[in-house]
Amino acid sequence: MSIQTEIAAAINMLRETKPLVHHITNYVTVNDCANITLGIGASPIMADDLREAKEIASIASALVVNMGTLHERTMESMLAAGAAANKKGVPVLLDPVGAGASALRNSFAGIFLKKINPAVIRGNISEIRFLGGISSATKGVDAASSDATEQQEAIALARQIAAAQNCTVAITGAVDIITDGKRTVLVKNGHKKLGDITGTGCMCSSLIASFLGAGADGVIASAGGIAAMGMAGERAYAHTANKGNGSFRVALHDAISNTTAQTYMEGGRLYEV
Amino acid sequence: MSIQTEIAAAINMLRETKPLVHHITNYVTVNDCANITLGIGASPIMADDLREAKEIASIASALVVNMGTLHERTMESMLAAGAAANKKGVPVLLDPVGAGASALRNSFAGIFLKKINPAVIRGNISEIRFLGGISSATKGVDAASSDATEQQEAIALARQIAAAQNCTVAITGAVDIITDGKRTVLVKNGHKKLGDITGTGCMCSSLIASFLGAGADGVIASAGGIAAMGMAGERAYAHTANKGNGSFRVALHDAISNTTAQTYMEGGRLYEV
Amino acid sequence: MSIQTEIAAAINMLRETKPLVHHITNYVTVNDCANITLGIGASPIMADDLREAKEIASIASALVVNMGTLHERTMESMLAAGAAANKKGVPVLLDPVGAGASALRNSFAGIFLKKINPAVIRGNISEIRFLGGISSATKGVDAASSDATEQQEAIALARQIAAAQNCTVAITGAVDIITDGKRTVLVKNGHKKLGDITGTGCMCSSLIASFLGAGADGVIASAGGIAAMGMAGERAYAHTANKGNGSFRVALHDAISNTTAQTYMEGGRLYEV
Repeated sequence: MSIQTEIAAAINMLRETKPLVHHITNYVTVNDCANITLGIGASPIMADDLREAKEIASIASALVVNMGTLHERTMESMLAAGAAANKKGVPVLLDPVGAGASALRNSFAGIFLKKINPAVIRGNISEIRFLGGISSATKGVDAASSDATEQQEAIALARQIAAAQNCTVAITGAVDIITDGKRTVLVKNGHKKLGDITGTGCMCSSLIASFLGAGADGVIASAGGIAAMGMAGERAYAHTANKGNGSFRVALHDAISNTTAQTYMEGGRLYEV
Repeated sequence: MSIQTEIAAAINMLRETKPLVHHITNYVTVNDCANITLGIGASPIMADDLREAKEIASIASALVVNMGTLHERTMESMLAAGAAANKKGVPVLLDPVGAGASALRNSFAGIFLKKINPAVIRGNISEIRFLGGISSATKGVDAASSDATEQQEAIALARQIAAAQNCTVAITGAVDIITDGKRTVLVKNGHKKLGDITGTGCMCSSLIASFLGAGADGVIASAGGIAAMGMAGERAYAHTANKGNGSFRVALHDAISNTTAQTYMEGGRLYEV
Repeated sequence: MSIQTEIAAAINMLRETKPLVHHITNYVTVNDCANITLGIGASPIMADDLREAKEIASIASALVVNMGTLHERTMESMLAAGAAANKKGVPVLLDPVGAGASALRNSFAGIFLKKINPAVIRGNISEIRFLGGISSATKGVDAASSDATEQQEAIALARQIAAAQNCTVAITGAVDIITDGKRTVLVKNGHKKLGDITGTGCMCSSLIASFLGAGADGVIASAGGIAAMGMAGERAYAHTANKGNGSFRVALHDAISNTTAQTYMEGGRLYEV
């Protein structure tokens, strides 16, 4: 069965079951995350007070922990919700926004990974490199000279973290890399225009968690969420060309809400390696 | 005088007086609430620090208390602002988002209603059912088998809470129910597409509070705000059809900003029962 | 060299260097600020926890301190980040949202200006009048009877604060006033429709900080940021007319993202006085 076929089945399940996705996330892109979660067919709930974080995580179908605007109050809630989710078997997605950029984020990412077992970690190459340092006590992969070499090293890094944390690792970039240590998928969808608006990474994480909430495994959920965003970026750009960032963003939300099994079968550029 | 005629007069007053609407609300839909408040002709101010909540509530024309992302810091501010508003005669709208979903929300809703006298409570049927349990010490209305029966029970519940709390209760749903215990209005505007984007409930509350701030009573304010959202949903869907969630949301904001007395006279489907 | 020519050079520099702009800002318009910062060619980072505020401010190219939803936790971070920025020579923009509207805001604005040296203060006339009272121990400028007189008094006020605080002061309004006490620029771009959506003031501040981050001085950065917003408002209105607030907002983001040196040369209405 091709990976597209598996994702097609997963999005049908997602749109049928409308899973509840609990987010403890940043206040910059939270509205985009709520709307994209609805757009792909799931149901968002945002709740970050320590006194309800566990309770909400326990009734949710998936939990997103996004470090975008980390602060004291939400850090505790993230750990409590993560522990409750792990206990109940609710899959957890960690989006380590800015890992490597401040001591606070570095320290928290380390603590979170020591205490919580995420189903998926999704980040860009810098964030994942930083986590590589944490989980393996090595210094992670240094920037390499050629693109092919960089990709090979990124795949090796992702596999190493996936094995160490027993989870799926997704590195988003020009070519996206997804692996659970055994199965590895490359996603070649996307458009550089996605970098012109805020929140496309955070939204990707919400999409992945929506798939997790519908019962997809880490690799299929990551591939489904990341390819959805990539294909939507392609179509949004095709529809709005250089009209500008505002129109592109509207078209992106349109495209996600129109994503179906057929969209993946026709437009998905996913490759197992 | 028909209810449409009363609302027409109220929106003219709203657009003339541009009332200041103080919000203590969630960080998910706050931007939508600010823009929708401007769209209907009022002026939003968001301020949630305990040290200024009272002061801002006192100079505002209406106060929105929205429990969407309730937390320790804002709970205190909501109570302080509510008390200051009550003291000054500034009408208060309570949006009990997620009442029934966590112990924190349940407890806070109870405390708020014990200490503060809202002019309007607006929620969906689950939230209002939960409040019914609080205010009457009964268990509220259980799910009924037929739609007509459900509607009758929902009206009875709304009237019971309105009487117990001495306020207007608005239950939004496929058919919206508004009552102050004496006068009862059904609003049959709306479109199911409104459920595909986040914040339509929160925005409804901001619209109602805008009318309250312009001097409308609880029933007219609720009918005006809820019908505005419903009619805007109908027009937004007519303009964008299945283009997608992003376009629908833009068209919704367009439609609210174009709402006038005439819009209600031509498109309002409001019925006193 | 005309002011347009100087701004044209500045925006070319901005789009080449993509400066990192640290924001400690409100949760109402933060998403708009992030997107507008990307739209003009810079890179936003939002971080407000006290334990990382200094660190992020130190690595940024500019810092925005926006008092929109001021609260205890962020006030400390604003002071810490401001001090770190001053120490490192990172330019600071203060947006004193609501100065004059509550004791909390008044007190904090005073403390901030005593401890931190901003490169630019941008506000509306009420906010700047309040700061005038702080920095000069006078009561600021009272409302005057004629427009021409009001403008002269506003210019005098801006120059007085600029001298007292050793910074650039920008007052946005129907005609925008920018001065560092020596050089004074009026910007006559803009459209009243900008007042129909939330966040245009906050976004203006983010645009100015983006120019500061690219090395522009306070006057050029303020003129560049404010004229960008004004010209974008003109074009957005021309493209969407009375379609509504949602469409106008999308077109505004489009217009900012399409702003180039040529846009200023052709559409800038900037006058040194």
